[in-house]
Amino acid sequence: MTEEIVQFGYAAEGRAPFSLAEYERRLGLVRRAMDEKGIDILFVEDPSNMAWLTGYDGWSFYVHQGVLVFHDADPMWWGRQMDANGAVRTVWMAGAHITHYSDAFVQSTERHPMQHLAGLLHDLGYGARRIGVEMENYYFSAKAYVTLRDALPEAHLVDATALVNWQRTVKSDEELDFMRRAASISERMIDGVLERIEPGLPKNELVADLYRDALAGNGDWGDYPAIVPLLPSGKDASASHLTWDGRPFESGEATFFEISGCYRRYHAPFCRTIFLGEPPDYMRTAEAALIEGIEAGLWAAKAGNRACDIANALAAPLERAGIRRGARCGYPVGLSYPPDWGERTISLREEDDTVLEEGMTFHFMPGLWMENWGLEITESILIREEGPAETLCNRPRKLYVKS
Amino acid sequence: MTEEIVQFGYAAEGRAPFSLAEYERRLGLVRRAMDEKGIDILFVEDPSNMAWLTGYDGWSFYVHQGVLVFHDADPMWWGRQMDANGAVRTVWMAGAHITHYSDAFVQSTERHPMQHLAGLLHDLGYGARRIGVEMENYYFSAKAYVTLRDALPEAHLVDATALVNWQRTVKSDEELDFMRRAASISERMIDGVLERIEPGLPKNELVADLYRDALAGNGDWGDYPAIVPLLPSGKDASASHLTWDGRPFESGEATFFEISGCYRRYHAPFCRTIFLGEPPDYMRTAEAALIEGIEAGLWAAKAGNRACDIANALAAPLERAGIRRGARCGYPVGLSYPPDWGERTISLREEDDTVLEEGMTFHFMPGLWMENWGLEITESILIREEGPAETLCNRPRKLYVKS
Repeated sequence: MTEEIVQFGYAAEGRAPFSLAEYERRLGLVRRAMDEKGIDILFVEDPSNMAWLTGYDGWSFYVHQGVLVFHDADPMWWGRQMDANGAVRTVWMAGAHITHYSDAFVQSTERHPMQHLAGLLHDLGYGARRIGVEMENYYFSAKAYVTLRDALPEAHLVDATALVNWQRTVKSDEELDFMRRAASISERMIDGVLERIEPGLPKNELVADLYRDALAGNGDWGDYPAIVPLLPSGKDASASHLTWDGRPFESGEATFFEISGCYRRYHAPFCRTIFLGEPPDYMRTAEAALIEGIEAGLWAAKAGNRACDIANALAAPLERAGIRRGARCGYPVGLSYPPDWGERTISLREEDDTVLEEGMTFHFMPGLWMENWGLEITESILIREEGPAETLCNRPRKLYVKS
Repeated sequence: MTEEIVQFGYAAEGRAPFSLAEYERRLGLVRRAMDEKGIDILFVEDPSNMAWLTGYDGWSFYVHQGVLVFHDADPMWWGRQMDANGAVRTVWMAGAHITHYSDAFVQSTERHPMQHLAGLLHDLGYGARRIGVEMENYYFSAKAYVTLRDALPEAHLVDATALVNWQRTVKSDEELDFMRRAASISERMIDGVLERIEPGLPKNELVADLYRDALAGNGDWGDYPAIVPLLPSGKDASASHLTWDGRPFESGEATFFEISGCYRRYHAPFCRTIFLGEPPDYMRTAEAALIEGIEAGLWAAKAGNRACDIANALAAPLERAGIRRGARCGYPVGLSYPPDWGERTISLREEDDTVLEEGMTFHFMPGLWMENWGLEITESILIREEGPAETLCNRPRKLYVKS
């Protein structure tokens, strides 16, 4: 069907990183979820979902692009003309499944790429069908929604937010292999930080070496992480998402380093906090409670338990130490593009009773952001049949101290 | 007004990078544009616009956040509770202008942050007013729009896409100072690439050093660029947005390096192509036409001319050499967050007749992505009263060759 209607003559090279069987497995899961929601065709704009389904890889998600998932044909890549050459080089599908819109649609005030997509959907016979779209996503804008809706008045746009993301929660062995490689890079990054940090060293110089380690890799080549390193110090560590500047590290301050190695878009986020000098008692007290909480959480993190069980196990020792966090303590991780390395499905928090399954992976992330200081010790974890969960990185779980 | 209604007791530290006069200038421009569209209050979710208006800086744009612009009061930062501490540290407004929603709204299937924002807008007296929203933006999702619309049935949501972006086109002297610092880092990055590249060197190792240079900076500390380095080689250079992998550079291939230094979120994108070995004649021919086109474009790039004049000046020599690009050849640049370092307003293309003004800055970007090879030679430029435009980076404008 699709071959007849759209044919640009692309000759795909098929360099996608996983086996065809793996992509078939993923498609099967997604089609079943589409069935459950009565979706005839799914438009996936999330770049992580695009890559997970097709292998597509490129920094082109700042313009509209996506993957169409059919029930009865291979997926179709759709994007900007100049990026179709990138699709040729990265997706597993045949060239006939690569389609494009012209550059005149790009960031234009007169035309919108969704008008082109509407035409394509109409030509493919879906103009009056149930079309799934990712309503809550960075890349499917409000304008994209309104334009597509107006251009296809007979279609029914169905909210398919996170439909694909939910299929990504349990990792295959091929994916776990990638995540272990990423974790090895994360370990190397944190080792390098501990070795280099000292009072007086400008933060940006440390980050320069940190990035060097991340990309040089550790036997495997390093890819860019979906979030840049976060490393606030002292009072700034009360803020969770500050990056860096040119000021020096100072004695008497703790800095947390929330980082992730990345191998072919797979992540293993990891955080350790380093105190330069002698930590105050209140930080030692918090450290002890946090480590006790993490260990309790790791034991609760097993197949059959629920997401909230991890959060509750963590909370108990913290509350005994007088610390109420009030924020979720983790989220699923795996394949990601900026701006988030989380998968945006499960949240490790009190109200989430999702049942954990073997092969799920999370960033177990109980950051403490207090009024005038912060402490983050985290683990990327793999859920197994029995507890404790496996930690993908293996480094001492403590507040690092350097005098 | 706002002080009475919202008061979390934050004590702002006021570390924003520009003078208060500069922020007042920006606010004045935005308020005038709001007036022209009859907008009573503007909700800005674009992180680049947020930073431009308030100084806010943090990697927190993966959750909903924004800035409310009033006609008669300082702007208000609104975001996730844990990020309010980051706002305290980065915005110029008083602490009473920092507001937050609780973590329970984050990536929840039951609650959406826009419900909280709707409550805030209602409490502030804007529940039935004309509220500007950025319909075409990475961070204001389709779901955000629908949720806000449904939660404020008496309000009129006005499309304010790029309203702030358009005020950013002409740069102040303070901004140009930042861009020149970024350009100096861009030069250092390209110098380092030329020095290090050689056949057999794995790409990721070169990128590791490239990032090191970008962040170590050049007298000034380096910030992360809004787009990662793009460096496809050989046939892959026919694709515009591929990143890197672990394969080695090879003799007989051209690689373009599209990069940007970044100083406090300001960019100066720059690209040079390097051929390892002896370039074929067709590439030399394209090089000559491209350089002639760029020079013609630089002369056309002056105040009073139009955006299309640059595109047309470029096109003529290329067409004489048999090359029709078909894509725009540039866009405004300045302050940016991922996923784009362009400002998404003007496009340097045939149909855009925006009149150029002194102080506008563009990435003049006439990439050639041919069927089996690519050639990119670009300049970040500053529009002046007379031509030619000033190039922010100063490096030989040619195809670099390394034997």
